[in-house]
This record gives sequence, C-alpha cells and structure tokens, in this order.
Amino acid sequence: MPVAQKRGNPISVFIPVSILSDVPSLIEKTIKVGQIARAASIFRVERIVVYRASKGDSREDGFLIRDLLSYAETPQYLKKKLFPISESLRYAGMMPPLRTPHHPLESTMIDYREGFVLKSGKMGSTVDIGLRAPVTSGERLTPNTRVTMMLDQRSGSWSPVSRADVPHYWGYTVSLENKSLRQAIEAYDPVLDSVVATSRVGKLATAVAPRIRELMSPGQRMAVLFGSPSEGVHEIIARDGARLEEVADLVINTVPDQGTATVRTEEAVLITLAALDSINALG
Amino acid sequence: MPVAQKRGNPISVFIPVSILSDVPSLIEKTIKVGQIARAASIFRVERIVVYRASKGDSREDGFLIRDLLSYAETPQYLKKKLFPISESLRYAGMMPPLRTPHHPLESTMIDYREGFVLKSGKMGSTVDIGLRAPVTSGERLTPNTRVTMMLDQRSGSWSPVSRADVPHYWGYTVSLENKSLRQAIEAYDPVLDSVVATSRVGKLATAVAPRIRELMSPGQRMAVLFGSPSEGVHEIIARDGARLEEVADLVINTVPDQGTATVRTEEAVLITLAALDSINALG
Repeated sequence: MPVAQKRGNPISVFIPVSILSDVPSLIEKTIKVGQIARAASIFRVERIVVYRASKGDSREDGFLIRDLLSYAETPQYLKKKLFPISESLRYAGMMPPLRTPHHPLESTMIDYREGFVLKSGKMGSTVDIGLRAPVTSGERLTPNTRVTMMLDQRSGSWSPVSRADVPHYWGYTVSLENKSLRQAIEAYDPVLDSVVATSRVGKLATAVAPRIRELMSPGQRMAVLFGSPSEGVHEIIARDGARLEEVADLVINTVPDQGTATVRTEEAVLITLAALDSINALG
Repeated sequence: MPVAQKRGNPISVFIPVSILSDVPSLIEKTIKVGQIARAASIFRVERIVVYRASKGDSREDGFLIRDLLSYAETPQYLKKKLFPISESLRYAGMMPPLRTPHHPLESTMIDYREGFVLKSGKMGSTVDIGLRAPVTSGERLTPNTRVTMMLDQRSGSWSPVSRADVPHYWGYTVSLENKSLRQAIEAYDPVLDSVVATSRVGKLATAVAPRIRELMSPGQRMAVLFGSPSEGVHEIIARDGARLEEVADLVINTVPDQGTATVRTEEAVLITLAALDSINALG
C-alpha cells in the first residue's frame, strides 16, 4: 500500500475537555481518548484542539486528554523516552496503535523518521530513530527532544527537517487550551480558513454539499467543532455570550435519523469526517 | 426530538468472530463489542450476523460477541431478568447505553415497550414493561420470555405485537452462525436483496455512487460485509473456495487515503455506514 500523504485540505478538530466528564474510570477515559486518536489518524487530521466547555471543567481531564493524545501520537520506539511513567498513563497501552506513516516498523523503508536527540555537541548530534543503531547528524540539535529526520538517499545521511515539509501524513499536534470555545476559535483564526460546527440541530450535511466542497477545496484549512453528548456546541458557545452562527461558517448534522438518543464525541468524529470526505469526493 | 423510525432500506451487517482475536483481555473485548453495538444502533441496523472467518476461530469469542451484542440490545430494565450473572458479562456494564427508542426511560411516552412475561394463565399474562407496575394482557404468553407490547391509546391496554410491526427503530437481532462467510451469505440470501463487501482494495465508494443508491433505494435489503484488520473479506472468502466478486454485488472502499495502516472493524462499521448514508442522500 502507498504511504498515506498529507491532506491537501488540512483539518483541525476541536473537542471539549468535558467529553470525559461522564466516564468514571481511568480505563474508560483512556479508551475514549484512544478512539479519538484513531479517528483523527484515520482521517489524517492535522491538529486537535482541546477546549474548555465550561469553567467547571476538570483540569485533570484536560491534562489527561492532552497526555493521552500525545502519547498515542508518539512512535512506539520513542514513547518511553518522551513519557516518564505516570499514573495518568497507566492504561495508555490499551489504546490501539495508530500505525500512521510516522509510526514505522524497524523494517519499513521510509525516508522520514521521528527521532529523539540522545546527545549533541560541536561535531553534531546522535539521534535514535528507531533503527538498530542511532544515526548521527551534522547539526547541533537540542538533547532530549523529539525531532523529525530525513534520509538523503544519495549520501545515506540523516538530517533534521520541519514536520511541515514531510509529504506523508505525519500525525496530529495536540493543544490543550485553557480557553472557551469562542476564545479557542479566535486564537486559531490566523491558521484557519473556515469553521464548521457539528450539531444535531444543524443543517443536513448532504443538503449543504456545495458549500462543504468549497470549504474543503485544496489549500482550504477547515476546523470541525464538536461538543459533548451532554451539551452541544450551541449551548457551549452560548455561555460565551455568542451565537454559533456568528463563529461558524456552517452548522451541520452528519447523522440524520440517528437511532440513538445521543452520539458520543468519539463516534461523531469518525462519522463526521467520513461523511465530509464522501460529500467532498462526490463534488 | 422525534422518535427514530426504522430504515426504509433495512441493513444487515456481517462481522467475523475473529475481530476479538487480537484483543487479549475481556475488558477490551467487551469494549470493542460495545462499539459495534453503538455503531449498529446509531445507523439503525436491523440484523448483525456473526460469521466464522476460519475454522480456527475461538468458539468462546463467538459466544462472547453474541452475548454482549444481545446484552447491549436489551433494555436496561430487562437485562437482569434475561441475563443471569456470568463471567463473560463481567464488564458488560462498561458498554455505553444504546438509548434507542426501545430503551425508554420510565417517563418516556411511547406506545411500544419491550417486556418480560412474569406469569401467564387462562386469564392472560402479567408483563414487566419497565413501568412502576407490570401490565396485564388478555393473551396467554410464554412465561419468562421477552415480548414486544403495544399500547392501545383508546382503551389504555397493552397487547403483544410483532417486532416487525413497530414503526420505530427497535434494535438489531444478533445471529451467531457456525458458518463460513460464504455459507452465511447463502443462508441469508432469501432475506437480502444485495451484498456489499468492504475492502481496502475495493472500488472507491464515491466512484460507484449510482450503484450504491440503487442498492439502498426504499425496500431494498442490503448486507454489508466486514472482515477483520488482520484479514480482509477477500482472504476470508478465498478460503471458502470462492471469489468475493461472485458473492458480492459490490466491493467498496469507504476510507480512501486512510492515515492508518489498518482500519479496525468497529471503526469500519461507523465509517462505512456514515459514508453509505451520505452517498445515498446525495442521489
């Protein structure tokens, strides 16, 4: 199978800290976050923004979502180096592996690899990129940090590269924002071209297909906003003193006639991204 | 919100016993089956058929999938009556509630309710339908069985009704078949109008949209076949000595350019049903 490429239309996903509020145990919280990590990876999401749905949101749950999403996104061979053992990651091993292009097996032939800078000096750096032996690079890199490395096919040497320059899907970034949804949207405004909110009372996604295709055309950077089952984005944004229609270009419902009273956020992410891609592809 | 109605185009989903083969613990197996129960309920699936992917499939896993799917589908107030405490259902409480129309709260006003026949005699039957007190019905029903009851609005009396006659989405049936995929398809042939297989090497679903719309038009009963991440439906059916194209009307890929090496079955069910509904709605 070919290596998955980045999206031509980058997608950011906004989820509230409160998705974990109705889940009692750490195991269940871990599994729920793992499902969101998988959904984002399957649909090659570039960025996950975790926002504050209300002032009463659990600070711990916010940190937990951030840590678990980051842990899941880290290649297997770097997890131990980047994440010290902690109580919150106790069940992190139960999250299914993402198996994205940046989580290669040792045997995978790929010109880019995530690495961890083992040491660095005047002569350059030693970087663990998950191969039998670390590689060396002429650049002086910051020790104990994660870095993306690229192989020069002619010389056989590895050098650091910006994550943005990797053509393959290279995982998502995670930002935990101590911000309300409205503030979070404003903060990301410079890197977004459109904002699409999901709501059970939104317009049928298929009924606004031409508009969706505009917002998903090549180069267009779209944010997709999710609420929680207990509270939709309408209610969440209303507490900000705003109306959803003021901050979102489109409010869509992607599960008409749902058989269940509510759709959980981790389900809504998969369903919505699947529906959006199908709608866009039929344009 | 209006009560979800049955699909005009009934959908059956076929999943292999082997979906649990790579999951070590009962907790994880339970959660995975719970995700499939949710996916089926969100998209108002009528029937789940669990088939044998290979002769080496775990018999225990087959029973477990059947029991957990049935448990999830049973209204809360009947679970204890219909499922004796068992080791296999130890973590069943971790499966999220389905909240389908046939899982009403006591306060929900709905003319149909699932019931459990407490006792029966010449004068009729006493049925627990999850209200404060059991109701009586003139019919002589089989004690200790589950039954669908309908309220006569004029007389205020309840009487048994066929599940098929309920206009609302009324959950899925579960059949564990000790059959290969090919045999299972043949067994259900009389109640199916078409068979759609999902495969990473299938045709892009959006590229065969007109055909999908034919197969999903009102009254058409479609089966959607899923493999497991370790083995696609092509490989599974090949062991039956058949080619997928012989048994399926269409072989589709619903996740083009997936960012992950594999898509897990519980994810594929949500994604595929979302994509199919979007494609159909755009017709």
